Amino acid sequence: MTDTTPNRLLDAIHSPDDLKGRSRAELKQIADEVREEVIDVVSVTGGHLGSGLGVVELTVAIHAVFDAPADKLILDVGHQCYPHKILTGRRDQMRTLRQGGGLSGFTKRDESPFDPFGAAHAATSISAGFGFAKARDLQGKNNHVICVIGDGSMTAGMAYEAMNNAGADKSRLIVILNDNDMSIAPPVGAMSNYLSRLVSSRPYRGLRRIAKKVVSPIGLESPARRAEEYLRGFAMGGTMFEELGFYYIGPIDGHDLDTLIPILENVKAMREGPILIHAVTQKGKGYAPAENSADKYHGVSKFSVITGEQAKAKPSAPAYQKVFGQTLTKLAETDDKICAITAAMPSGTSVDVFQTAFPERTFDVGIAEQHAVTFAAGLAADGMKPFAAIYSTFLQRGYDQVVHDVAIQSLPVRFAIDRAGLVGADGPTHAGSFDIGYLGALPGIICMAASDELELARMVVTAADIDDRPSAFRYPRGEGTGVEIPDVLQPLEIGKGRVLREGTTIALLSYGTRLQEALRAAEMLMAQGLSATVADARFAKPLDTDLVERLARDHEVLITLEEGATGGFGSFVLEHLAKVGALDRGLKIRPMTLPDVFQNHDAPQAMYETAGLTARHIAARAIEALGRGDIAEIDRFARA
Amino acid sequence: MTDTTPNRLLDAIHSPDDLKGRSRAELKQIADEVREEVIDVVSVTGGHLGSGLGVVELTVAIHAVFDAPADKLILDVGHQCYPHKILTGRRDQMRTLRQGGGLSGFTKRDESPFDPFGAAHAATSISAGFGFAKARDLQGKNNHVICVIGDGSMTAGMAYEAMNNAGADKSRLIVILNDNDMSIAPPVGAMSNYLSRLVSSRPYRGLRRIAKKVVSPIGLESPARRAEEYLRGFAMGGTMFEELGFYYIGPIDGHDLDTLIPILENVKAMREGPILIHAVTQKGKGYAPAENSADKYHGVSKFSVITGEQAKAKPSAPAYQKVFGQTLTKLAETDDKICAITAAMPSGTSVDVFQTAFPERTFDVGIAEQHAVTFAAGLAADGMKPFAAIYSTFLQRGYDQVVHDVAIQSLPVRFAIDRAGLVGADGPTHAGSFDIGYLGALPGIICMAASDELELARMVVTAADIDDRPSAFRYPRGEGTGVEIPDVLQPLEIGKGRVLREGTTIALLSYGTRLQEALRAAEMLMAQGLSATVADARFAKPLDTDLVERLARDHEVLITLEEGATGGFGSFVLEHLAKVGALDRGLKIRPMTLPDVFQNHDAPQAMYETAGLTARHIAARAIEALGRGDIAEIDRFARA
Repeated sequence: MTDTTPNRLLDAIHSPDDLKGRSRAELKQIADEVREEVIDVVSVTGGHLGSGLGVVELTVAIHAVFDAPADKLILDVGHQCYPHKILTGRRDQMRTLRQGGGLSGFTKRDESPFDPFGAAHAATSISAGFGFAKARDLQGKNNHVICVIGDGSMTAGMAYEAMNNAGADKSRLIVILNDNDMSIAPPVGAMSNYLSRLVSSRPYRGLRRIAKKVVSPIGLESPARRAEEYLRGFAMGGTMFEELGFYYIGPIDGHDLDTLIPILENVKAMREGPILIHAVTQKGKGYAPAENSADKYHGVSKFSVITGEQAKAKPSAPAYQKVFGQTLTKLAETDDKICAITAAMPSGTSVDVFQTAFPERTFDVGIAEQHAVTFAAGLAADGMKPFAAIYSTFLQRGYDQVVHDVAIQSLPVRFAIDRAGLVGADGPTHAGSFDIGYLGALPGIICMAASDELELARMVVTAADIDDRPSAFRYPRGEGTGVEIPDVLQPLEIGKGRVLREGTTIALLSYGTRLQEALRAAEMLMAQGLSATVADARFAKPLDTDLVERLARDHEVLITLEEGATGGFGSFVLEHLAKVGALDRGLKIRPMTLPDVFQNHDAPQAMYETAGLTARHIAARAIEALGRGDIAEIDRFARA
Repeated sequence: MTDTTPNRLLDAIHSPDDLKGRSRAELKQIADEVREEVIDVVSVTGGHLGSGLGVVELTVAIHAVFDAPADKLILDVGHQCYPHKILTGRRDQMRTLRQGGGLSGFTKRDESPFDPFGAAHAATSISAGFGFAKARDLQGKNNHVICVIGDGSMTAGMAYEAMNNAGADKSRLIVILNDNDMSIAPPVGAMSNYLSRLVSSRPYRGLRRIAKKVVSPIGLESPARRAEEYLRGFAMGGTMFEELGFYYIGPIDGHDLDTLIPILENVKAMREGPILIHAVTQKGKGYAPAENSADKYHGVSKFSVITGEQAKAKPSAPAYQKVFGQTLTKLAETDDKICAITAAMPSGTSVDVFQTAFPERTFDVGIAEQHAVTFAAGLAADGMKPFAAIYSTFLQRGYDQVVHDVAIQSLPVRFAIDRAGLVGADGPTHAGSFDIGYLGALPGIICMAASDELELARMVVTAADIDDRPSAFRYPRGEGTGVEIPDVLQPLEIGKGRVLREGTTIALLSYGTRLQEALRAAEMLMAQGLSATVADARFAKPLDTDLVERLARDHEVLITLEEGATGGFGSFVLEHLAKVGALDRGLKIRPMTLPDVFQNHDAPQAMYETAGLTARHIAARAIEALGRGDIAEIDRFARA
């Protein structure tokens, strides 16, 4: 599309400066062209579609009115950043989106000065924006700070904490609430109901109506005006945002440049205090398939622009997520205590599978991991069996609650830790790198990692039976190995690993899905006459100390493997062996972990290569430790 | 007092059942006696005074009306639990409060069935309570769930997340907002302003007024009534709590049993939906010194009941907190980029020292660690030098923000990690056990621990200079060693430790304040002719690999020491040595960490004994590893 349409205005837009002085008609055309471009790009690269389409006009209006990068535009989550990237000098790179070495799918500080704050997790924008606002004031600068936050993010407590702080302060801060009545799934909770009532009970504020509030350039500076506003708040008649100290403007039509631009121009002239503009938009706007099915077009694979059909590779094995959802559902048929909790990710975690069967035992609490964890603790404290399915990286949001409300009280909350390890195109913000360490440090918890989908299914069964303490099982994004899952699943013996292959010289002890690579590595080593034992630890806590000590005693080299950061499984093995004196007489022990960097997005296999966690790397590390064997030979084997 | 006043009604109260059927006059007398008892107990034990005094009538009313433990009473934070403990069979043990083997200063599940959910961190009660409510409904039970939460806790996003969830649900849940216009310090933010306006704009709802809303026993069950309420909310005229789906009752006088009891009785009869009762109380109520200085009497030492004078031991050295506050203040005199951030702990962290000198550069954001961290990231992203002073255990609340908003973006936020390690009387909920591991796992961050207060001062200076990445320095609760702090402070060399004592056989490598014990252990060993090197690692990240490798190479035994959980400093040392092959030929390496249990509250020295982290334990571990020397001799030395 891009290459064949002549005389496009967008071709002349290399930075937001190029939007300045344009007629309203030209800006409208540019918005249309940005929308086409987003559809075209995502049809080729895949990625987040609906969010970007919903903010095309908003993004054009912001960049036409404000002066980025001096003015700071902070996009919450970042799913909606594609129009912004197109307008800020990155249009030529858009087709590298989410690919190795290409543009990030989110805002990213080191990608462009137009991205003053990176994002990917929800609800950080007002906090960061308020930081920018105070930094500006303290440094005597005069720039604007504009945060764009979706209604879905408003379920997160962090947004409320930030409003509570900013709303009691005089610093100038502009928050645009992009209300599309969606997060990834439809949003839940009382705030969402409130916003719906707010929109349905008030007609759109047209320019004339809004003008009464903001058209005077002195804006809120007038003391009389301030007093009036204060009194109005005092009388308790305002919106919730006004009660929290924000000057509320809205609701307005977030697709109408004739409303957006004058309002933003007037807001730009206001000199004091936090302002919230409530803009109503439609997720997927302007692309019928996405408008009609906003959740399915939130994140997409490559697709046909004409039909909207997404090109999905046929999976060769079920995804771990599905196996989790199906196993839990099956268990719940005979155990009415089992509940499932998700923090706004029913589809991503397959909690929706459970929900279909047991809606009354399913809880989607919104983007609210803190609450999710303690809510689960409350359920457990009164005898239920809650499974909280949360991505590893998002569980960081509820870490204190895991410590304080679950672990200290030894409550049997079961954590299904999804997206453990590297995740590919979503990059470092979504990688599940730290959970092995941050959970394994907690007294009393039971930590497991699945090496394939059958193991995962058995861990679900195992966790259901653990009723006196917390437990957690981690599993990666994506497809399993295709192993068969029998109808009857035996629980695992707590704290016991398994040996898959007995050898003599080298021991490979894997925690989680690198097991397949360990088995391949053992083949590579065998080809050189080096005998390797391969074991699946299954548990990081309690550690299978018998197995670990035996592997250490009976082998010259012991390699631990995990898809996690330093301070995790390998360190637990090392600490145990050190404490019992098993390192006293020497052991060639090599912990292999994720590297100590935040790895940028790339294809999964490329990320494992960079991480040094493939079979080739494992075999090479063994040879290196052993001081025997031929690493070049390993490379030849790997290529064969 | 207790023993000398005859005919006390309180003597007959062994459980809440004993309050049932009492006249209003008797209940008032019991409340007065509970108040006396709280004052008397805390004058002997020290502890949290003002919060408990503020909820005496509320606690009596709740236990007179509801049927704990079948009904679940969940006290937020737990500072206010002393009257509850007195009324629920624990009166005899009150004088063991906060002492080893005695009652906890907070609610605790394993202490009593009347404590259905433990607490100590703020704002968990509504989440847990909603869990109890759903568990009740799913199990077909009929009990009540009552959460008591202070206005200070309402600054925490978690409370909002829980209200957002519960407010959109029909489950019966009673939340009592205990509005004393205080957290530990005066509360901050827009919600606090809102509550003040709410109270000042509406006279207390007396019984007659409230009765209109709740006196009918059918309560909210009437469909017409529900519709009316719904319409009222729809018209956007309600309080913020009504807009979030709660049935709001208040404000009411939280010290007036003649209001409280009828209202609670009526609320008890309501069958559906979440209810919020807004009770206004006075922190420290009924004890003049505490009423007049609510923040100073939040937590107290033993004191004279007559004069209110607190018995404070003369400190022999300045507290770490003070040294932090003073050093930062001094630095800021010549560096106008330095800012300080606290999450509702200005006094506990000594940020108040900084605030006195630089109010415009000080930010108390409320109990809002998530926001605190990302707000600091925003400040850093625009060129300021933020120091976020947060207790180790509370920083868990902002962990995702440390990862996602600070570390991934490599922003120079400085984390002053207070209360690192064991804390004594506050027990496991306040111990700073996990930060070494959960921060040390993050790529790019710089992690330090101070071994004395001069080291801390130098770390403040060092962190101020680190402007391209996050840094953190941890230090314990309480007094330093009394070391002199010069006027001019040199920054530390990044990633370099120091050797305090050179020896030959044993190396003791300490991270943080166990250094003093290491030096004493070296003396003990020396007395047996065993020569020990003592080193202060200063950095857990980047690790001083030269030092670590040299200590490993030149000694027979290497002991690492830290006041932190497994997966921390010792494991970083082990992982490094393993990766470079330094364990291949054998090293008697022994990581000494906090034990893998949540240690109950006790006197600090007793906790170190239990933890096995005293000089005696260190020396004994060295002898054990070495297989030479006499551990009995060490014990004799320790006792001498």
